[in-house]
Amino acid sequence: MGLTALLLSSGAVAGIAATSSASQGVCSAPAAGWGSGGGLLRLGRPAAAQPGGALSLGNSLYRSNSVRAYVPMAAVAPPAAAPPAAAPPVVRSSLIEPDGGTLVDLVVPPAEREARRAEAAALPRVRIGEIDLEWVDVIGNGWASPLRGFMREEEYLQSLHFNSLRLEDGSIVNMSLPIVLAIDDATKEAIGESPDVALAGQGGDLVAILRRVQIFKHNKEERIARTWGTTAPGLPYVEKAIDPAGDWLIGGDLELLEPIKYNDGLDHYRLTPAELRAEFDRRGADAVFAFQLRNPVHNGHALLMNDTRRRLLDLGFKNPLLLLHPLGGFTKPDDVPLDVRMEQHKKVLEDGVLDPETTIVAIFPSPMHYAGPTEVQWHAKARINAGANFYIVGRDPAGMGHPLEKRDLYDPDHGKKVLSMAPGLEKLNILPFKVAAYDTEQGKMAFFDPSRAKDFLFISGTKMRAYARSGESPPSGFMCPGGWEVLVNYFKSLQAKEADQQPAPVAV
Amino acid sequence: MGLTALLLSSGAVAGIAATSSASQGVCSAPAAGWGSGGGLLRLGRPAAAQPGGALSLGNSLYRSNSVRAYVPMAAVAPPAAAPPAAAPPVVRSSLIEPDGGTLVDLVVPPAEREARRAEAAALPRVRIGEIDLEWVDVIGNGWASPLRGFMREEEYLQSLHFNSLRLEDGSIVNMSLPIVLAIDDATKEAIGESPDVALAGQGGDLVAILRRVQIFKHNKEERIARTWGTTAPGLPYVEKAIDPAGDWLIGGDLELLEPIKYNDGLDHYRLTPAELRAEFDRRGADAVFAFQLRNPVHNGHALLMNDTRRRLLDLGFKNPLLLLHPLGGFTKPDDVPLDVRMEQHKKVLEDGVLDPETTIVAIFPSPMHYAGPTEVQWHAKARINAGANFYIVGRDPAGMGHPLEKRDLYDPDHGKKVLSMAPGLEKLNILPFKVAAYDTEQGKMAFFDPSRAKDFLFISGTKMRAYARSGESPPSGFMCPGGWEVLVNYFKSLQAKEADQQPAPVAV
Repeated sequence: MGLTALLLSSGAVAGIAATSSASQGVCSAPAAGWGSGGGLLRLGRPAAAQPGGALSLGNSLYRSNSVRAYVPMAAVAPPAAAPPAAAPPVVRSSLIEPDGGTLVDLVVPPAEREARRAEAAALPRVRIGEIDLEWVDVIGNGWASPLRGFMREEEYLQSLHFNSLRLEDGSIVNMSLPIVLAIDDATKEAIGESPDVALAGQGGDLVAILRRVQIFKHNKEERIARTWGTTAPGLPYVEKAIDPAGDWLIGGDLELLEPIKYNDGLDHYRLTPAELRAEFDRRGADAVFAFQLRNPVHNGHALLMNDTRRRLLDLGFKNPLLLLHPLGGFTKPDDVPLDVRMEQHKKVLEDGVLDPETTIVAIFPSPMHYAGPTEVQWHAKARINAGANFYIVGRDPAGMGHPLEKRDLYDPDHGKKVLSMAPGLEKLNILPFKVAAYDTEQGKMAFFDPSRAKDFLFISGTKMRAYARSGESPPSGFMCPGGWEVLVNYFKSLQAKEADQQPAPVAV
Repeated sequence: MGLTALLLSSGAVAGIAATSSASQGVCSAPAAGWGSGGGLLRLGRPAAAQPGGALSLGNSLYRSNSVRAYVPMAAVAPPAAAPPAAAPPVVRSSLIEPDGGTLVDLVVPPAEREARRAEAAALPRVRIGEIDLEWVDVIGNGWASPLRGFMREEEYLQSLHFNSLRLEDGSIVNMSLPIVLAIDDATKEAIGESPDVALAGQGGDLVAILRRVQIFKHNKEERIARTWGTTAPGLPYVEKAIDPAGDWLIGGDLELLEPIKYNDGLDHYRLTPAELRAEFDRRGADAVFAFQLRNPVHNGHALLMNDTRRRLLDLGFKNPLLLLHPLGGFTKPDDVPLDVRMEQHKKVLEDGVLDPETTIVAIFPSPMHYAGPTEVQWHAKARINAGANFYIVGRDPAGMGHPLEKRDLYDPDHGKKVLSMAPGLEKLNILPFKVAAYDTEQGKMAFFDPSRAKDFLFISGTKMRAYARSGESPPSGFMCPGGWEVLVNYFKSLQAKEADQQPAPVAV
């Protein structure tokens, strides 16, 4: 299936280039790496000034976020001069504005925490779960700017129906996932008419205040159908966070009593959007390209990221930085856990597969929805707020297999297409890429070439697991030895666990 | 349930006014008829110039399409002078611009029809169904402007995910329903690489040409989930038009070989958007308020429509016209059929319940989706193209009962809320209204007053049917006698049909 899907994918990408060039009367050569899909690269300009790049055939009526891969040097805006090193976190960077113009920061200043905590202690209490807490972190640090709390109904409806929010000034920001907090009847009852509530973690610890709350119905079926495009049982986020949730949603303005700490030894990786922006400025980045992932990094990913940097240099940027940005929130049980992934990523940099000088590794605290084209918009939008002005999108982003049918849940090309047309993301440069696979001819990871499909070997997560279990190594050049070792140890530990779970032999 | 829902409804409407006035620092008195929901009336101004009217509590970050019900006379733009009578249909009216700036007209000019028909005869043929033909009519006459044909994938994806389309110039038009044509594998095979195809009706008659076609996957599950917010079996449009359809969608630019005629004796009611605009100009309308319906008109509707006209006069308009605009396409079997409804509407005007001088009755040829908040946007957007600058929206527009559960499929208030925030509808004035019911105290239809709910009698379609069957009359003042007689005859004819279908007694 992987192969078929892949062929489809690159086929469609070629289609895009053909037509986007057609619609521009320009014949752009396919670009390995960004593939013909390089057709989606554009430089951020005011929406109105953007050249059209229709995705479909012979139709110039509609405008996508994209232009062709190769922009003549002359057309490239001269990279902005590196701003002076900023000691305290800055909420603006020279690269791209946060949505809404200002980065949201909802953490109560230290001086006021004691008073605010006392106030919270006296409020009706809403007990929140692990994923809710991840959202508190996400909202509180401005990843969802300009959102200032859990969604009220008008924000929820706009997100659900339009994947965007319209601001007072008439401008549009992208907001594709409903960021909501569910409560049950008893909690609703307990809140009564109180305008404010306190949010408490599983241990009862006070986490935040939610102000001017609005309580409205939680129609789970409609939320799931419009967010995932299916209501099939077996969607990981739904089973974990929606099915067990209450029938009401509570929106309001959030105030964090203090920054969220996970105390898992990885907090130093959890840079806020403000901290990331400050770091980019400190390093004098004139372009930042974000790579969202929830899997180990193999040399195909590395090839792509290094290739992207090279192309940005070709475009005239002097100091493009890579934001290697693994997702750190909820993931499904069969994904490789965060701590193992972070260890693996560390090795990838130590082994020099990625250049530490031009790479920043940080954790994106959002939980994973596996909602494909709807979720990829969120992944991109949050990186705008973190100061990244280029976003890499691959095949079937945020996708998974259909829970009931033997197929991908989403068309593998819809993610990049939807992203390229999404309201509020016009200012982001979208970099689609062809999938890389192991080229048995060259004996290394290379961008898939459909003309000699048979030479390519696709190494899925399942296959990696099989290698690791059998103690067999994957083809040399698939992954750096240090990174591979981390995975082998992880998969072996899984085997051990499973062995322990075998029923003990019973004496007859 | 009706009552509960109603109370909810008017409660929420009050909520809207409270907050919209709050967000504007204006205390507007609740307006019977438009209810406090008059809070959604606004006069079309460029988006940027619009005052905010947040729907939710204490949040001024977001901007809705709405302003408060009562605009001071001074603030009302002086009604435009009536343009001279236009003999041929005009594609612009003084009231509101068609989406995209120009009204789409895809009917081949008479002089070219013979040649175009010959060309069509030589093209691969796609056999289309009854509902497809209704869409050909809808697209061809510009109801869906600026759409020029069945959607290609990029339009389909934008409609499905964003309920809108972005044009070349960066502007947004509303497009909430995917307007697509499905084909099966065999047809796709037969089309092969042909850039153009001919569309043929059930009788094999050539209807149109579809040019520069694009064929893409028809993921029915995703289309249904994102359009209806449920995948429950029993959705009328889905069972009629999607379940039996092919697994591919074909998009392209449409050319009608001639205007669609239904030959059902009602074609004279089928005015195109261009004809409606011409008629409004001929009558010198300075405001047109559209009322979409698929049911018989009772005196509650009439009260509302007459009340709306009165309010528009109060606002300074000199000649507001009512577009009574029954939907003429596919409806579910238990809805009253179009011919009966048109006869009933005719009586309502003859009996003087509505003023023929200031009312235009015409048929809106779209098929009904029963997709609630998603569909009401389409109903409103199409009326913009027909030249209406005011749109009346009630409780649970385009809604129905949940096919499996004992509840409304949609929150009865979501329709007006979603409509008030929908991208591309900012230029339309939205007029929400409280539901009217039979006031047993006053002995007539009146706007529901929750403070004395027990005085109100809700007469549903089912109840109407029961009255008619039993030969019993509804309370006097519910509906004009002429209109009621039409329904009685229809329901009696149904009874007769059902009687015929009873199995004949069997001799023992």
